[in-house]
Formats: sequence, structure tokens, C-alpha cells
Amino acid sequence: MSQNFTLQSTDGTARAGVLHTRRGSVETPFFMSVATRAAIKAGVGMEDLESINAPLVLANTYHLHLKPGADLIERRGGLHEFMKCDKPILTDSGGYQVFSIKRKKITDDGVWFHSHIDGERFYLDAEKSIEIQHQLGADMIMAFDECPPSKLSATSFENTAPKNRERKLYFKVKRAVERTTEWAKRSLAAHQAKYPATLSPTERPQLFGIVQGGCFPDLRRKSLAEICALPFDGFAMGGLAVGEPPVEMYKVLDEIVPDLPTDKPRYLMGVGSPTDLIEAVSRGIDMFDCVYPARNARHGTVYTWDGELRITNQEFKEDDGVLDPKCECPTCQSGYSRAYLNHLMKVGEDLGKRLITIHNLGFYHQLMREMRVQIQAGTFESWKTDVLKKLR
Amino acid sequence: MSQNFTLQSTDGTARAGVLHTRRGSVETPFFMSVATRAAIKAGVGMEDLESINAPLVLANTYHLHLKPGADLIERRGGLHEFMKCDKPILTDSGGYQVFSIKRKKITDDGVWFHSHIDGERFYLDAEKSIEIQHQLGADMIMAFDECPPSKLSATSFENTAPKNRERKLYFKVKRAVERTTEWAKRSLAAHQAKYPATLSPTERPQLFGIVQGGCFPDLRRKSLAEICALPFDGFAMGGLAVGEPPVEMYKVLDEIVPDLPTDKPRYLMGVGSPTDLIEAVSRGIDMFDCVYPARNARHGTVYTWDGELRITNQEFKEDDGVLDPKCECPTCQSGYSRAYLNHLMKVGEDLGKRLITIHNLGFYHQLMREMRVQIQAGTFESWKTDVLKKLR
Repeated sequence: MSQNFTLQSTDGTARAGVLHTRRGSVETPFFMSVATRAAIKAGVGMEDLESINAPLVLANTYHLHLKPGADLIERRGGLHEFMKCDKPILTDSGGYQVFSIKRKKITDDGVWFHSHIDGERFYLDAEKSIEIQHQLGADMIMAFDECPPSKLSATSFENTAPKNRERKLYFKVKRAVERTTEWAKRSLAAHQAKYPATLSPTERPQLFGIVQGGCFPDLRRKSLAEICALPFDGFAMGGLAVGEPPVEMYKVLDEIVPDLPTDKPRYLMGVGSPTDLIEAVSRGIDMFDCVYPARNARHGTVYTWDGELRITNQEFKEDDGVLDPKCECPTCQSGYSRAYLNHLMKVGEDLGKRLITIHNLGFYHQLMREMRVQIQAGTFESWKTDVLKKLR
Repeated sequence: MSQNFTLQSTDGTARAGVLHTRRGSVETPFFMSVATRAAIKAGVGMEDLESINAPLVLANTYHLHLKPGADLIERRGGLHEFMKCDKPILTDSGGYQVFSIKRKKITDDGVWFHSHIDGERFYLDAEKSIEIQHQLGADMIMAFDECPPSKLSATSFENTAPKNRERKLYFKVKRAVERTTEWAKRSLAAHQAKYPATLSPTERPQLFGIVQGGCFPDLRRKSLAEICALPFDGFAMGGLAVGEPPVEMYKVLDEIVPDLPTDKPRYLMGVGSPTDLIEAVSRGIDMFDCVYPARNARHGTVYTWDGELRITNQEFKEDDGVLDPKCECPTCQSGYSRAYLNHLMKVGEDLGKRLITIHNLGFYHQLMREMRVQIQAGTFESWKTDVLKKLR
């Protein structure tokens, strides 16, 4: 197959399609469960992912490079064999994590940084990031990018006079856009050195480019033009959901997504809440990943079709109902009550975190499948209006 | 059925049989997975217990009485409905936990104690313990007993001159034996007030008596004579595995077990290591519970047919083998490698704890089933000799 993406139907700007990978095809739009260190949090296992029909998994290059090391995972036969995952895996480039670290030195070549675990010094650049991702054996990999802050924040600009901050942020983001383009070219070259462009995208890992530019429309357009001119297998929006209000993110999507190629998958990195997913799908995004559903589950926040609930609240102490009667996840289908989950979370039993994580991830995947159904039926916009009223 | 226990075969003093409960029959000898607060630790769920053929579950009266409260669980329809467990459940009487608390006042009537959670004051006696266990809806419940220390310890006798300590311990254990007998009678009366003796043991919860007496043979024999004269459905050895060396425990079993009724199940509470289980089965014990397999799993200790291993050791970092190639648990059957589990435990991913807990519990249940097979084949003693060589 020479194309890796089949667009099946559109409803307004929302899209339903299929992404073809060397490890099977996945219907879009979809959400990726996050397995940062080669495991979903809260003890959720592969058989749990199977039970909620999770289509694929995301793992983090930065964390796995540090521990246990990409060499070790390669010697084990790659990430799929290591974590016993038969679904397609996407790895990020490590860029996002590295740029979140305080102790780092960025040059046009790459980044020196200190491990968050033991302070050990590491170097990452386009070639190294691609090499690591090849070693991990992911089916979709990401170009190495610079992810600058999207907004002024007290900490990152504390030594800059307030009147100069906006200007300083602009130039910071501009330089990140320029570097991201250079590193994208180097990422592509490193990728094609191992997997020639003559191979079809279902015979090799696919490489996605990342569009940066913060919340500056001109920089976003510049980045988009440069990145989309390169022969990537898909295109990601990076540097969003990093602190800016959701409406600003939606504005960036409004401006940028229409100019993305229609024949390639579009990935909004690190997003987001159920509302964010719906708003982004409505603007033409196909792929998502986010730590929200699992992280919030561990703090007792449950997603339902009627909005969020805090399971540790007193009101659920004697509630014999399941988390969401419309939910198809094993936690709800097995009949675990809100009262039981309230008890487990209040006494700190790990089973509570696990059952709610399964539910929240299950809810996310159901939400994605429901959006696909609505897009194919041409009813997405009215469905969106109804659902957002309940979720908000 | 008027009998709750069928003795099927013996091999030396080891026994294979069937315990009949109102929630189905269970083959002996067996091990009970511990669900202290209505959940197995490390996020292990009911479907995991199913996958390792766990025959039944033990829950703790003390912990559940404190949180979420027996009233609340009764209003939910009992523990089975609350935790979605369709296996027989045994609850302890709370005695062991209460007597482990520092802030308590014991009288001949019962015990005042302070909750370990928030210091709130609670009262427990025979009638209250039985009432709570009835509310929880367990299928096997325990008489309320006093569990004294089995050995001299620096902390419990620090104000006693060394030469008087043995004598003080003796009288402490003697008084515990006397109270345990009185409380056993009161427990029986409270039980029969709700479930008349005319009901068959498969139509009602079964009540087990507990033999105390520490490591003093005369006190053990006194307690046994008094407790076994009462119409309990089964008999437990209490006050063992509380600090004394294993050989002393085996000695007590050697002296006491032959005098237990042969037509009732025999339960050794809170025991133990794989070696302890084998030694105790060989002496005629049928039932066990212990936190070891799950607790040790959380600290990276793995049970195998070739003995224990510490999964976080460097030697397992690149070991592609499963925990135990002979093991039938899902962790081993799914092929999760020692290298993967080493990684998960070293970075602190909950999935590591869960997968190893499943393995350790699965190993314990396989060990019990294997002992049953050997007893039925009449090969228990030679099997025991071989296995203990490897396990030690």
C-alpha cells in the first residue's frame, strides 16, 4: 500500500478515516493510551487495553532512553516484545520532555540535558532521537523538534522586563520554528538512511513531522509551510496544550488545520480533555494522546457522558450505581459500584486506581468511536452540541 | 448436607478433602488470597483471581468495621455484592488485629481500642464480632479470641525482670486461653441466635473455633480440649506465626493436630512461606491464609519452584525468561520476561507489582493443588523431600 491514510468521510471539517501501519490498520479519529515507561499507569495491563478496545499505545523515547535504555530494549526484540504489545506503537521524539527539563543546553545541533532520575548527562539530537526510536521498534515515530513555551510564564521570563516579554517569547518561538525545520530535515534523512523512501509506509516505521509556532499565527504558518513541504507520513501539531487557554488552542487549529494535507493523518500532541478532543476532531484532527484520563483517574476524577465526577465525594458513599450506566468498559460492565470505588479510593487500595483508569481510558476510546460514527452518519455537529452541553 | 467436610484421602498425616459451603465446595488443602479491605493488594482484581483459580478469599473484620463500616456493606448487600466476589469468603474475627494495637484495654467482656486510622474509640467483643461478620455476609466466620504474643519480646515485657519474663508470658497466654474459651462459647451462642444449629452448614455461615496457647504444650492441650468440645464447623490454630521460629510452630502442630477432630476442616491462621505450607499440610492442616505472597511481590520477591528470587537484582536485567517456566499463571503464560519485570519494579511502575502479585498468588494456589495431587497419589512424603530441597 503506497498510501498510509484513507479518508473515508467528512462532516464539516471533521474526518473519519483509516491509518494503515505495518502492524495493522486503525480507524480514525483515535486516542492513544500512554505507556510512558513501557507500561500504562496504575497497573493497567495489555489484557485491560484489549478489553477496552484500545487501538494503539504511545511510549516515551526520553524515559525509555534513560531507563532501561534503548539498547537493552532493542536486544529484547523491541518494545512490542518487551511489553508484550501486539498493537501499533507510536513513540514521541523526546523533544517535549527534554525541553521541559530545567538543566539543559540547547544548540542548533541538539540538546545536552541532565537526567531527571540521577542527573546523568545525556545528549539528544535529530539523528540520535531517530536512532533510539528505530531501536525501540515503534510503528510511528516523531521528528525531533524544539517545543518552546506557548505563553508567557512567570518562571521562564522572570529576568525579562514585562514590556519586553511578548517580544522575547516571539523570538524564542521563532528560533524554535527554525530549528524544528532543520531538525525535521535531519530526522527525515536519518530515517531514510535506514528505511529508504522506496519502501511503502506499511513496510516500515512511519515518520511524522511536527508543526511548531506557539500561538503566533505567522510563525505557525511559516512552520506549517516548511514542515508540510517535507515527505512525512503524517503531521503533528506540537507546542499546544502547554499552558495556553483551550480557546487559544482552538484558534490555532482554526487557522492551521485547513492548510494541512488532507491525504495524511493529523495528530494533536498531548491533548486533552473530552471537550478538547471533540473540538479538535470537529476541526479536522485524527489522532490524540494525553495523560489526563489515567492521571485524573488516580486522583479520583471519573469521566462520564454526563460530565466529570469526584468519586471520593461523600455523595457516592452509598451509591450502588456504576460509574456510567452507558459505559461499556469492564469496570462498569462488571458492576463495580460507585460506593465500592469510593471506598477503595478513600482507603488507598490500588484496585480503585486501576478500575477507574480502565474506565477513563475506556470512556476516551468510546468517545473517539462515537465521534467516528457521528461523522460517518453526517450528524457530528448536532451530536457535538448536545454532548458538549452535558460534558461541560 | 449435614457434614461440611469430606475427607477424601490421607497420606501419612497429610489430608485431601472437600469443604462444603453455602457458596460451593472447595478442595483441600487450600490457600486463601487476602483481601483485607475488600480488595487484593496491588490492583489485583476478581478476574485476576479467576485466572489463577483462586478458590476463595479472606477479608478482615477489623479493617472493614472501621472503613467503610459493616452497616454500609450490609446495606450494599454484603461483601460478595460489594466487591463483586462469587467465591466463598472467610472473615477473621478482628481479634488478631485488635490485639496487635498498642492503645487498647482488654477486659473479660471484650476489648476497647483506638482505630489505627484516626484514633477513634471502638469496642469489640464476641457478640459484636459475630454481628459484624454476619453483616459482612461471609460464608465462614471466626470466633472472637484473644491472641497473645507467642514469644518473649523486648517490647512487650520491657518492664519485667528477665528472670520473671517466661513466667509472665505463661500467665498471659493462660489467661488468653481461658478468655478465648469463654468468648468461643459466647461467639457460638451469638451465631446460633441468628442461624439455629438445626440449619445444615451449607445453608448458613460456618463458625470456626480458634485454639490458642502459644508455644506451651499444656496450654495448647487445654485450649484444644475446651474448644474442640464445642460444636464448631471447623477448628483453627491461632497465635502461631506471630514471631516464633518455624521449628517451634511445627512442634506445636506435631503436638496438637493429631488431637483435632478428623471430620472437620483445620485452619492454620496467617501461615506462611511455601515451606511452612508444605510442613503444615504434611502435619494435617487443610486451610491457610497469609499476606506473604502479595506483600513480598510488592517488594520484588518472586516465588518459583526453584526457590525465591529478587527480581530487581542486576542478574535479571537482560533475562528474557519468564518468572517460572513451569508456572501456569497469566504473568508467566503471557510471556512477561524477568527483564521487563525488573524494569517495571526498578522504575516503580504499578504494573510490575500487579504482575508479580498475580504470579506469587498463582504459585501458592498451584502449590496447594500439587500437594492435593501428591496426597491423593500417596506420594506426598517423597515429593515433599524433593521440593523442600529446591525451595530452601
